[in-house]
Amino acid sequence: MDFEIKYKDARGRVGTLKTPHGIIKTPALMPVIHPGKQTLPVSDYGAEVVITNAYLIYKNEDLREKALTEGVHKLIDFPGPIVTDSGSFQLSEYGDVQVSNREIVKFQEKIGTDIGTSLDIPTPPSVKRERAERELVITLKRAQEALEVREELMLNSVVQGSTYPDLRSECAQKLGKMDFQVHPIGAVVPLMESYRYQELVEVVMSSVTHLPDSRPRHLMGAGHPMIFALAVAMGCDLFDSAAYILYAEDDRLLMPHGTLKLENLYEMPCSCEVCTSYTPEELRQIDKEKRTELLAIHNLRVSFAEMRLIRQAIVEGSLWELVEQRCRAHPFLLEALRSLKNYSVDLEKYDPPYKKSAFFYTGPESLNRPEVYRHLERMKRIPFSKSVLLLPRSSKPYSERLYEVPQKFYSIGDVVENPLGDMQVTVVDVPFGIIPLELDQVYPLAQNESPDDYDEDSIKMVNGVLQEYLQGFSQIIVSEGVAETFGLTVNDEYIFPEPLKIMVNDHKRIKMIADYQFGTGAGEGLFNEEVKIVKSRKTGKIRHVYDGDELIATLRASDGVFVMAKEGARRLHRYLPYPKNRVVVNEDAEPFAREGKSIFAKFVINCDIDIHAKEEVLIVNEQDQLLAFGKSILNGREILDFNTGQAVKTRKGGL
Amino acid sequence: MDFEIKYKDARGRVGTLKTPHGIIKTPALMPVIHPGKQTLPVSDYGAEVVITNAYLIYKNEDLREKALTEGVHKLIDFPGPIVTDSGSFQLSEYGDVQVSNREIVKFQEKIGTDIGTSLDIPTPPSVKRERAERELVITLKRAQEALEVREELMLNSVVQGSTYPDLRSECAQKLGKMDFQVHPIGAVVPLMESYRYQELVEVVMSSVTHLPDSRPRHLMGAGHPMIFALAVAMGCDLFDSAAYILYAEDDRLLMPHGTLKLENLYEMPCSCEVCTSYTPEELRQIDKEKRTELLAIHNLRVSFAEMRLIRQAIVEGSLWELVEQRCRAHPFLLEALRSLKNYSVDLEKYDPPYKKSAFFYTGPESLNRPEVYRHLERMKRIPFSKSVLLLPRSSKPYSERLYEVPQKFYSIGDVVENPLGDMQVTVVDVPFGIIPLELDQVYPLAQNESPDDYDEDSIKMVNGVLQEYLQGFSQIIVSEGVAETFGLTVNDEYIFPEPLKIMVNDHKRIKMIADYQFGTGAGEGLFNEEVKIVKSRKTGKIRHVYDGDELIATLRASDGVFVMAKEGARRLHRYLPYPKNRVVVNEDAEPFAREGKSIFAKFVINCDIDIHAKEEVLIVNEQDQLLAFGKSILNGREILDFNTGQAVKTRKGGL
Ligand SMILES: [Mg+2]
Ligand SMILES: [Mg+2]
Ligand SMILES: [Zn+2]
Ligand SMILES: [Zn+2]
Repeated sequence: MDFEIKYKDARGRVGTLKTPHGIIKTPALMPVIHPGKQTLPVSDYGAEVVITNAYLIYKNEDLREKALTEGVHKLIDFPGPIVTDSGSFQLSEYGDVQVSNREIVKFQEKIGTDIGTSLDIPTPPSVKRERAERELVITLKRAQEALEVREELMLNSVVQGSTYPDLRSECAQKLGKMDFQVHPIGAVVPLMESYRYQELVEVVMSSVTHLPDSRPRHLMGAGHPMIFALAVAMGCDLFDSAAYILYAEDDRLLMPHGTLKLENLYEMPCSCEVCTSYTPEELRQIDKEKRTELLAIHNLRVSFAEMRLIRQAIVEGSLWELVEQRCRAHPFLLEALRSLKNYSVDLEKYDPPYKKSAFFYTGPESLNRPEVYRHLERMKRIPFSKSVLLLPRSSKPYSERLYEVPQKFYSIGDVVENPLGDMQVTVVDVPFGIIPLELDQVYPLAQNESPDDYDEDSIKMVNGVLQEYLQGFSQIIVSEGVAETFGLTVNDEYIFPEPLKIMVNDHKRIKMIADYQFGTGAGEGLFNEEVKIVKSRKTGKIRHVYDGDELIATLRASDGVFVMAKEGARRLHRYLPYPKNRVVVNEDAEPFAREGKSIFAKFVINCDIDIHAKEEVLIVNEQDQLLAFGKSILNGREILDFNTGQAVKTRKGGL
Repeated sequence: MDFEIKYKDARGRVGTLKTPHGIIKTPALMPVIHPGKQTLPVSDYGAEVVITNAYLIYKNEDLREKALTEGVHKLIDFPGPIVTDSGSFQLSEYGDVQVSNREIVKFQEKIGTDIGTSLDIPTPPSVKRERAERELVITLKRAQEALEVREELMLNSVVQGSTYPDLRSECAQKLGKMDFQVHPIGAVVPLMESYRYQELVEVVMSSVTHLPDSRPRHLMGAGHPMIFALAVAMGCDLFDSAAYILYAEDDRLLMPHGTLKLENLYEMPCSCEVCTSYTPEELRQIDKEKRTELLAIHNLRVSFAEMRLIRQAIVEGSLWELVEQRCRAHPFLLEALRSLKNYSVDLEKYDPPYKKSAFFYTGPESLNRPEVYRHLERMKRIPFSKSVLLLPRSSKPYSERLYEVPQKFYSIGDVVENPLGDMQVTVVDVPFGIIPLELDQVYPLAQNESPDDYDEDSIKMVNGVLQEYLQGFSQIIVSEGVAETFGLTVNDEYIFPEPLKIMVNDHKRIKMIADYQFGTGAGEGLFNEEVKIVKSRKTGKIRHVYDGDELIATLRASDGVFVMAKEGARRLHRYLPYPKNRVVVNEDAEPFAREGKSIFAKFVINCDIDIHAKEEVLIVNEQDQLLAFGKSILNGREILDFNTGQAVKTRKGGL
C-alpha cells in the first residue's frame, strides 16, 4: 500500500496515495464523472482524481466495448487516477443490479481502473437491526470474494452497518484485516440529505476508530463543502462530488456555509471566475445548458478551494478552528460538533500536542477539544504541594504579568501553617482550567486566546476541574476574583503572614515541564539539583539545561517543551521503563538509526502505543539499547500500522 | 442627500449613494489609491469607488498642477466616484500637516472630488479625557468651517472622541445636525491593529446610534475582511482598504477568517484567479513586484467577495448568521460579538422582525440576537390564562407534533382547580424560551433551528425567562423533561382529571397572533367572535379571516403573521390610538396615498417611532384620516430622518 501521512491535525491527515496513474494528494475531492456524458473538463478546475461508475459502463454495450479495448482512462478522457464504483448505488436506488460481484470486480480490473470497488450492500440508515446484520454478512462475503478475484487492482471495501455503531465497528475491523487499499464509509447520503449530522458523526467515528490508520477512508457521497472540514477532522481522506453538477442542474450554488439558490441571489458569493464575471441576473438569463456549466464551475472552484483550505489548516495546526467555524453553517452541524465530546479519548491520541498555530477558543465546543482533555490528563502527572494559591487570568505568559496579581484573597478550609514554604501558584483560566505558573510557557497554555467574557459552560467546566484539583492540597488560598467567577465557597479573607512575592523557581519549572511532557518523575530523572540552567540573554527565558558542559536538553522557545540532547535521551532512557516513549526498530534498521538517519515505519517492530505525533521519542533495538532519538511524525498506533513512509525524524544517532 | 436604503438586516443596510460621478452600491469597499503611484487597475477587480489622499496631491507640485487642471479623476485614472481624505492620517502619523482646513477643503472642491473631507483631529484611543475633549472642540470647529467654505462638494465629517463613548456620541450628534453627506468614524485603526474589537464595538455603536440614519457611515481604515460583517451589522456602510496593497507588499493574504503569510502557505486558500493559477511555492519564487501585484489581486478579490456576500446576507436576512460565523475568526472578535448584548434595545429597533431566511442558533451569542429580545418583549402583550402547561420542544411547528407530547407531568405550587378550562399550553425551547402553542407558526418561532444539546447559557437564560413568565399564572403544570432540563423545582406528579387532549383554538390563535404583532388588545379589535376563519385546503392552516364576505386579514403562510385587507386596516385604525402604527403624510402626498401609490420618505411628516421595517402600517393624514395601508421599508426613525427613497410600500389605498 502506498499511502503516506505527511501532516496531521485532529484526526485529519495530509497525505499521498500512490496509484498506477499518479499520486493523489489527500484529503482529496473526486468529482463524479458520468461515463456516457461528461462535458466539463474537471481537471481544469482542480481535479487530480475522479470517480466514475463501472456498472454504468458495464451495462452499456458501447461504453463497455470502448472501455475494454481502450481502457477507462481513454473512455472518460482523464489521464490521472480513476476510482470506479461498482453499482452499489444503483442497488440502493433500484434494489437490483444485473451483474455479480465477481464479474464487476473482474471488469474493473480489465478496464484499467486505478481503484475498484466490490459490490457491497448499501444498507440505509435506521433499518431494523436484523436487516443491517443480514446485509452486513453479504457485504463481508463479497469483500472476501473480491479479494479472491482481483489480481493487481487496488480495491475499495465499503464499511456498512446502517446506523448501528457496533455493526460499523465490526465491519471496519473485519475489512481492516483483509488486504484492501481504501475504505469507503457507505450509505451515509440519506443522513447528510436530512441534516442528521450527529448520526453521521457516530457512523464515521465508529468506523474510522476500527479501520487501519494506514489506509485512506472515503466518505462516500459527501460532496458538499459544508461537511468537508468536520469529516476530515474525523479522519476522512477522500470525498466524491456529484453535488457540483447535480446542484448546478438545479440552479444551486455550493458554499462552505451552505447552499444558495440562484433565484434568491442578489450578489455572486465568491471570488471564482464565474462569480467575478457575471451578476446573478445575467446568469439567470443565460440558457440552461451554459448556466449549468457555469454553476458547476463555481461549485467545483468552491469545493476545491475548501479542500485546499483544509489541507492548509492541517499543515498549520488550525483544523479545529476551521471545523468550529464551518459547523456554524447549520445548527445540526453544531450539534454534531458538540457530539465529538464523546470521542475525546480517541481524538486526543491522534491530535498532535504541539502545533504551529495558537489555540483559539470559538465557543463552548472548544472546551471539548483534545488539547483541553490532554492538559487535564497531563496535570495528573504533577505532584501536589502542601498549599495552593489560585490566581485569576492575566495576559500571557502569566508569570511575566505578576504585577497584575490582585491583593485580596480568601481561604477555603483552614490555613494554619505559613503556606509560602511549599505553595503551588496556579492560574485559573478558560479553557485550560488550571495552569501552574511553572507551565505557563508550554504549548498551548501560553499559545491560546479566549474572550474575557466567560460563557456558562466554561464556568461550569472550570468549577468542576477546580473541585477535583483542590482535593490534592491541604491548604487552599484563592483570589477574590477566582472565587467569585467560578463560584467557589470561601471562608475568611486570608492575609499572608509576609508580603506576597511570587517567583517561579527555575529548577521547579524545568522539572514540572518534564513531568508534564514525559510523565511523573521524568523531571527528577532528567534534572538533578546540580544541573545548570542557561537563559536567553534577549528574552530571559530558560533555553538550555546542562550537566557541567554536557547539554541535557533545550527548551524550545516556540512551544516551551524540551527537545533532548544526547545526554537527555540517555537519562530519559534510563528513567522511563520500556516501552515508554520507545520506537523499536529491527536489526536491518539499527545501523541507519545509529547514523542518525530517519526511521521508516516498515522497520519498526514495536513501539509505545501512547506516543503522539510530534513527541520526543527514543529509538531502540529489540534489546532496548538506545540507538538514537528523534521526533515522531505519526502516533504509536499509526507507526505500528503503517508500512510506508517516515515514522520518526531522527535528531541524533550514535548513542 | 442622495442616500437610499433598499434592504435592511440587523443594523446593516443595502443602499445606494448618488455622487457626481456615479452611484455607489453600499456596503462598499473603497480601495485606497496612492495618487502618485497607482499601478493596479482596481476597477477590474470590483472597485466601484476609490479613495485617495488630497493632501498628498496638494503637497506634490506635479500632482497638484495636474489635479487642478485636469481633475482628480484624470489624475488617478478612475472615472467613477472618488472620495478624498484631507491629511488627517498624516496629521496622526507625523503630528503636523502643512495646509489649513479651509485650504484643503477648497482644494478638494477644485480638483473635482466627489466626496471631500475636512481636516479633523484623529484623536487616538485611550488618550486622557482632557485631550480627547480639547481635540474634539477643534474637530467640530473645523467641521463648521468646512461647511462655510464648500460650495457644491459633498462632505465627509469624521466622528472623533477617542475611546470615550459619550464623546463619540456627542460628536456624532453635533455633526449629524450639520449639513454633511457622509460620516466617517475615525481613529479606530489602532484598535483594529491590536485586536481591541470590543472597544471598536463601543466606539462604533456610540457613534452610529447618534448619527442620522439617512447618511452613510464610513469605518475609516477598516480594510480587513475579518471585520466587515460585524461592522456592517452595526450600521457601517463604507470601508476603505489600503490593506489590500500593504498586506500584499508584506507577503500576506487577507481572508475573512484571518491573515495568512505566504511563507507559511502550503496551499492557496481561495478560488480567485491567483489562487487557482499558482501554487504557494510558485508565488514565493516570483519577483517581488509581480508577486505583490498578484497578492494584491487576491486581497481585492477576497475583500470584494466578502462585501458581496454581506450584501447578499442582508437581502436574504441572514446577516446575523454571517456575523456569528465571522466572529469565530479570533477570540477577541467573539468577545466583541458578545458585547453586542449591551445594545439589544437599539438593535431591536433596526432589525426587521420578518426575514426570508430562518434563524440559526450558532452558540450562546445567538441568545442576544434582537429576535430573542423582541419575542420576549412581545410576549408581554399577551394576556395570561389561569393555568399554564409547559411542554418540551418537539419538531416544529409544535402544534402539529402533539403526538410527541410526553405523559409525565408535575405541578409547581398547588393545582386545585381543573386546569383544562383556561389553560395556556406553552412550549419551552431554545433560544426563544417560551412559545405559546398559538404562536408556533409565527416568524421566527417556527423558522429557527438549534442543537438538541443545550449549552449552559441557554439553560440559564430559559430558566430566567420561565421564572418571570410563571409568575403570571396561578396554576402551573410542567412536563418532566422541562422541569429537569431547565432546573425547575416541582411538587408532586400531576395527573390530569381527564385524558389530556391538546387542541389549539382557532379564534384564540388569531387573536393571540394579532396581539403579539400589534399590541395588547389588537386581536380583540380586529377579530370579534363572529369572524369567519378560512383554512387552506392543502395545508389545513389558517389563511384568511372574514367578517361575512369582507376579508379582514390574511395570515401570510411564509411567516405566520397578518397582512391587512381594507377592513383589517380600518379596524386597526379604530383600535390603535394615534400615532401607533401610523405613517403621517402631508397634503401633497394625500391623493397619491389614496390611489395606493407608495409613500416616499420626503412626504412623511410624522410617524410612530416604534415602527419596524417590514411591518404593517397605516397611512394617515394630519387629521389621522386613514388613507391607505402598507408595509414599511424603513423603521420609524429612518422614515423620519430620510428625505429620499421609499418609506412604505403601499398595499391598498382608497379607504
Ligand atoms: Mg490553532
Ligand atoms: Mg437567517
Ligand atoms: Zn463562485
Ligand atoms: Zn485567492
